[in-house]
Amino acid sequence: MTSHIKFQVKQLIRISYDFLLRCIFHILSVGPIPTHIAFIMDGNRRYARKNNIGLKDRYRPGFLALMSRVKHCYELGVKYITIFAFSLDNLRRQPEEIQRLMELLREKIEVFLENDGFIKKYGVRLYFVGNLTVLGEDIHAAANRLMEETANNTTTYLLVCVGYTSTYEMVHAFEESIHLGKENRIIELEDIEKQMYMSIAPKPDILIRSSGETRLSNFLLWQTEFSLLYCPSALWPELGLWHMVWALLNYQRHYAYFQKKMKN
Amino acid sequence: MTSHIKFQVKQLIRISYDFLLRCIFHILSVGPIPTHIAFIMDGNRRYARKNNIGLKDRYRPGFLALMSRVKHCYELGVKYITIFAFSLDNLRRQPEEIQRLMELLREKIEVFLENDGFIKKYGVRLYFVGNLTVLGEDIHAAANRLMEETANNTTTYLLVCVGYTSTYEMVHAFEESIHLGKENRIIELEDIEKQMYMSIAPKPDILIRSSGETRLSNFLLWQTEFSLLYCPSALWPELGLWHMVWALLNYQRHYAYFQKKMKN
Repeated sequence: MTSHIKFQVKQLIRISYDFLLRCIFHILSVGPIPTHIAFIMDGNRRYARKNNIGLKDRYRPGFLALMSRVKHCYELGVKYITIFAFSLDNLRRQPEEIQRLMELLREKIEVFLENDGFIKKYGVRLYFVGNLTVLGEDIHAAANRLMEETANNTTTYLLVCVGYTSTYEMVHAFEESIHLGKENRIIELEDIEKQMYMSIAPKPDILIRSSGETRLSNFLLWQTEFSLLYCPSALWPELGLWHMVWALLNYQRHYAYFQKKMKN
Repeated sequence: MTSHIKFQVKQLIRISYDFLLRCIFHILSVGPIPTHIAFIMDGNRRYARKNNIGLKDRYRPGFLALMSRVKHCYELGVKYITIFAFSLDNLRRQPEEIQRLMELLREKIEVFLENDGFIKKYGVRLYFVGNLTVLGEDIHAAANRLMEETANNTTTYLLVCVGYTSTYEMVHAFEESIHLGKENRIIELEDIEKQMYMSIAPKPDILIRSSGETRLSNFLLWQTEFSLLYCPSALWPELGLWHMVWALLNYQRHYAYFQKKMKN
């Protein structure tokens, strides 16, 4: 009997939460919705330490939080999501930590390849952005396969930055511009922008970095000149819907300014 | 008699404030002090509107606030200060607004050239950073003169970004790297960094943007990857010593992290 009541209370909470969620979405969708949101998912290791989670499961809560946030964004009408999965600088971490990150990446790519429920539901085109050679041959091949398999989707986009830093992206883009440009031709801003990995998406409207750190850590430096930066103190796995609501309200408050800047 | 009491009360407040200031400085100087602080001085126009200040005097409160903050920083031991005086994007504003900005710049350069009290007291070397040709011939010449006259100072540095945007700086640096590089030589990150206008200073430890806007607005994108960003809601002329204290305390709290990043 007690467990029955508990179950009913849980159900009631879930239904109320869903209702509240729909209300918030309804309110927010009246205002302008950002086209592109980028995330720096900071605080996974601190969350694991706080909750005594071992290395093996260190990134699981973060991945669950990510999927939840991405789904909410797509349902709201956000077309592009970019996440900083791991930086070239992360490769300087402990070898077992890097191995765990790579295993998680391989595991998630395989899940997406075998079960395309999420991809089909939201019409997601997946991109891996950065120096993919650092992934190792088999993960690189799997990543390419996933990109090919989703290449015809155009409803939403998920850009996963791996082996990425913004300075690496910029230097790469300049070199490509030189190689593609004619001799002695002056390189224009547009030439360089076209060669950026991130040229596949418009510039982010919002950049969210969790865990209260207010640094860009070499992520999308070129692309976030006029983005709204939002750095809530919650660790990444704790970043909830309310933080998203707050970010969106802030975006809507500054919308006129953003529009003006984009037109310039 | 009343005016005498008023005067004494004012004196007492001033003495207490000075004493408090010295206490704060003493406490802060025990911890690590940043080498370089950069400022985006946002909110001058809003402050002028709020206080019914006309176009002629629009930037005066902001300039007074700047001098006060710069002096406090130098007294604390900060060696480099960079300010975003005006962006290349600002040139799209109303002509009378641009004219007022240029007049203010000319006026301040002349004041520094005629009265070098501030420059001598703090041993300031002045740099104007950006595309100085947008200043017009006479202001450009005056700026060059001021740079030459302070060229032997090495105690502190004041970098004034005029006609600057970060993307302009980067493209300029890439072009210079190409011109200086040998044919078919791969351009390295270091080659580009050497050609940046801002290569005269270490990367900023703290970037402060007033008026609560959390955007970099095309300012020092390359240099602030690991800088602490601090965006208090105060408009620029209202930015007080307490905001500086808060920024410094935050910097000291994250000091170990910054040191680690700088070493990498």
